[in-house]
Amino acid sequence: MTYTIEEIAKALGATALGDISMTIDRAAEPAMAGPRDLALAMNPKYAESLALGTARAAMLWEGADWQSLGLDAAILVSRPRFAMAGLTRMIDPGQGFAAGIHPSACVDPDAELADDVSVGPLAVISKGARIGAGSVIGPQCFVGWNAQIGPNAYLREAVSIGARVRIGANFIGQPGARIGGDGFSFVTAESSTVEAARKSLGDQGDAVAQPWTRIHSLGGVRIGDDVEIGMGATIDCGTIRDTVVGDGTKLDNLVHLGHNVVIGQNCLICGQVGIAGSAVIGNNVVLGGQCGVNDNIFIGDGVIAGGGTKLMSNVPAGRTMLGYPATQMDKQVELYKSQRRLPRLLREVAELRKAVFKTGKDD
Amino acid sequence: MTYTIEEIAKALGATALGDISMTIDRAAEPAMAGPRDLALAMNPKYAESLALGTARAAMLWEGADWQSLGLDAAILVSRPRFAMAGLTRMIDPGQGFAAGIHPSACVDPDAELADDVSVGPLAVISKGARIGAGSVIGPQCFVGWNAQIGPNAYLREAVSIGARVRIGANFIGQPGARIGGDGFSFVTAESSTVEAARKSLGDQGDAVAQPWTRIHSLGGVRIGDDVEIGMGATIDCGTIRDTVVGDGTKLDNLVHLGHNVVIGQNCLICGQVGIAGSAVIGNNVVLGGQCGVNDNIFIGDGVIAGGGTKLMSNVPAGRTMLGYPATQMDKQVELYKSQRRLPRLLREVAELRKAVFKTGKDD
Amino acid sequence: MTYTIEEIAKALGATALGDISMTIDRAAEPAMAGPRDLALAMNPKYAESLALGTARAAMLWEGADWQSLGLDAAILVSRPRFAMAGLTRMIDPGQGFAAGIHPSACVDPDAELADDVSVGPLAVISKGARIGAGSVIGPQCFVGWNAQIGPNAYLREAVSIGARVRIGANFIGQPGARIGGDGFSFVTAESSTVEAARKSLGDQGDAVAQPWTRIHSLGGVRIGDDVEIGMGATIDCGTIRDTVVGDGTKLDNLVHLGHNVVIGQNCLICGQVGIAGSAVIGNNVVLGGQCGVNDNIFIGDGVIAGGGTKLMSNVPAGRTMLGYPATQMDKQVELYKSQRRLPRLLREVAELRKAVFKTGKDD
Repeated sequence: MTYTIEEIAKALGATALGDISMTIDRAAEPAMAGPRDLALAMNPKYAESLALGTARAAMLWEGADWQSLGLDAAILVSRPRFAMAGLTRMIDPGQGFAAGIHPSACVDPDAELADDVSVGPLAVISKGARIGAGSVIGPQCFVGWNAQIGPNAYLREAVSIGARVRIGANFIGQPGARIGGDGFSFVTAESSTVEAARKSLGDQGDAVAQPWTRIHSLGGVRIGDDVEIGMGATIDCGTIRDTVVGDGTKLDNLVHLGHNVVIGQNCLICGQVGIAGSAVIGNNVVLGGQCGVNDNIFIGDGVIAGGGTKLMSNVPAGRTMLGYPATQMDKQVELYKSQRRLPRLLREVAELRKAVFKTGKDD
Repeated sequence: MTYTIEEIAKALGATALGDISMTIDRAAEPAMAGPRDLALAMNPKYAESLALGTARAAMLWEGADWQSLGLDAAILVSRPRFAMAGLTRMIDPGQGFAAGIHPSACVDPDAELADDVSVGPLAVISKGARIGAGSVIGPQCFVGWNAQIGPNAYLREAVSIGARVRIGANFIGQPGARIGGDGFSFVTAESSTVEAARKSLGDQGDAVAQPWTRIHSLGGVRIGDDVEIGMGATIDCGTIRDTVVGDGTKLDNLVHLGHNVVIGQNCLICGQVGIAGSAVIGNNVVLGGQCGVNDNIFIGDGVIAGGGTKLMSNVPAGRTMLGYPATQMDKQVELYKSQRRLPRLLREVAELRKAVFKTGKDD
Repeated sequence: MTYTIEEIAKALGATALGDISMTIDRAAEPAMAGPRDLALAMNPKYAESLALGTARAAMLWEGADWQSLGLDAAILVSRPRFAMAGLTRMIDPGQGFAAGIHPSACVDPDAELADDVSVGPLAVISKGARIGAGSVIGPQCFVGWNAQIGPNAYLREAVSIGARVRIGANFIGQPGARIGGDGFSFVTAESSTVEAARKSLGDQGDAVAQPWTRIHSLGGVRIGDDVEIGMGATIDCGTIRDTVVGDGTKLDNLVHLGHNVVIGQNCLICGQVGIAGSAVIGNNVVLGGQCGVNDNIFIGDGVIAGGGTKLMSNVPAGRTMLGYPATQMDKQVELYKSQRRLPRLLREVAELRKAVFKTGKDD
């Protein structure tokens, strides 16, 4: 594919300048850009590196003096990262999956596929599954019994969707995403050591170790519109009701959602985050990589948590959190600074005790 | 499927009251329950929400005055979560996998399958593999060379079992569970920077960076009876002997077991826990989500660790642990509280120093 | 396969003693070794356990008095773990994958496979893919559009390689490794709450919650020679340029590399480590299990981080780090010790305040 400068600028609602009929093949970083690339230099600090490449056209910051940079054409944008979204969507070459249903796919005769659904090689579509118009089911994917996938889904290779999963429109599943496993829910015949330790904050009391009996997951997973699930991420079915992921929410690679979890709309759940069973997450929540959320707690709308934060109890809406255990970010940063002074503090207190109480090194 | 109130109560060893011949189709939360659902309200706090739904039958706590709740039938249970195990097992609709060997599956003629084993579409069973009676091998599963799976296994879609893996009876594998990869074991020709840093607790000394040479895994994985492995969980083969998972132990999604790890019986290993090579875990151990266990350490019977705990050294039997580094839970909670007072403590010590030593703000 | 003591010693460059024509079938731990096993007892502390087994031959430490241990033959080695690498490579029975292209595999006619490439059952090789001589593509693997894999690759079952991925020689992919998903990169139309919180270290200011728009990944993944990727590990494509993994680097199970990450040569990245987008990792870096690396930071050559360390900001070359947030290991260990004294310190300061200021328990 090739694109003219004019086409791209128009698609982004941006300003095209110079030889706007010039065609480009792809985007490139300024220093690596050749004469048929669109160099991406949307910040003045990248201007110099344009000279290291041989780009004739570039996407630049608003107000850039593009001609002095030796370019023949330019696109000026006001919010660079947002312009990147439009540009990359336009020129994404994709994965090259073929249209139609590959002859090696196993599509149950009782599955309902809209006319233009494509199914890759060695995919399995089970009985009763329903897949909306325009959806792409990638190679080696699995769609389970009665599972529903809305229109315009794009499943990369090896995604699996179990029974009782319902997914809205415009879903994206990255390779190996796993939706609809059974919840991790086990119980002992008599009260367990874990129940005792939870009640007492640590004391297992007289509880006796016992084998675990399984609670089956009768619920499913309900996923809204415009959701994306990363590589190897896992979402468990609910026990009685469904596990829920709201519209516009995105899960990164290797994220784990336990049974009965409810996540609101437009959340970003970064790589390797784990959310334990029955936790409820509001709208517009952002959890940095490797965060953890305890079971049965509530995280309010708009909460943001830095990487590695372990949310152990309810968090009110709007808070920005950090650390293990999670603390408000400003207090946590103050705490980290205080901790670094702790070894000296111990020495100072020993000196004070000596001066005040005339003691030596204490016991 | 439908079930009578009498049938369900009998299966649970519970008391059925009222119109015990009434049939229900499924279980539901009280507020969402319709007239053909069994509402689950096993705690008095859920009694009110029964009125929001239209259930005619409910599972209730022992001693509940079911008639005053407007129900036609009720099942009274003494330990609600344990009753949930029996109920959900009874009415689980499952995944709808078909019986028999799907014609698209690749089953090596040298594999030994008991007569009633079912194998899903596009599954691979390798030469020498042995699969016990009543086992279900789901769609797109892989069973490797000479691997053994006991009777009554249930493998969901896309589970893989490598060579030299032996699994006992009643195994459950969730989608994408991975058993029998090679261990992560590498060595340098001369002593490495890591060896130096471990010995000195941080000083890499004169050790020189070198390339890594692979130690192959000649051992396998040995899994007992009644084990369940979660979605995307990974278990490495041992180096010389086997990696071992004991009877009754359950691993949640995305758990990682390194090579040579030995886990005892009836452990619960929650989501995203990582257990490094050659660690030994006792019986009845419960590790909360995202716990980590250092390589080559020992965790005693009955240890419980809260979410995110990093177990860096041996832990005696019976301890309840929390934090990074892991500390006994009661001490860790006291420590967290103390830490929050640290900024004020710094100010207080500065005041004391000023008063006692007549110093200003110290250097 | 059987091996003589002489053959093994020769392959390891080690000393063979006694009946060097004796043949063994496999290696075993001393206590479990039978008469046709090579017992591995390369440390004097394992000498005693030789008596518990019935080995006639053993691999021993340099200078061992092998005859007094009742053996008929011995191999003496100077660096045991390095000898293990050579021994285990020599006698690894492997996975038993068949040579040739399995008839159930879907190999696109436009893919280029060197003559001796083997492809397992139900694998998919897409159009334009190129696979080097001697490579083994395991059962149910996926190789995407135009993807390149160098010579002598060994892909275990269910590995997936997306479009725009280029891999060097001698690659090893463990089961379910996922390479070439799209990066997790989203932007809002106006400045977001996350941007505000990052600038202010916690204050979300007046930023308004908005839906997320996707930035597509146009870049690929470039992997050097001699790289190994663990089970379920995930590597995202870059946004414009490639995500890069250098020669000789090894990734353990469930590791996550975000978009644009660059990792140098000969690094060891242990289980469940997460490296966020655009982080740059030097050469010979070792990250213990469950470490996290923030986005857009730099980790210098030779850095070693203990298990669970969260690297939140740049780390100069050669440092050994521990903790959350990451601190130099020796300082972190001192800090942990100080923390344990904190509850007592609080009491001591209260006493001092009482003595000096004549106050009671403070407010």
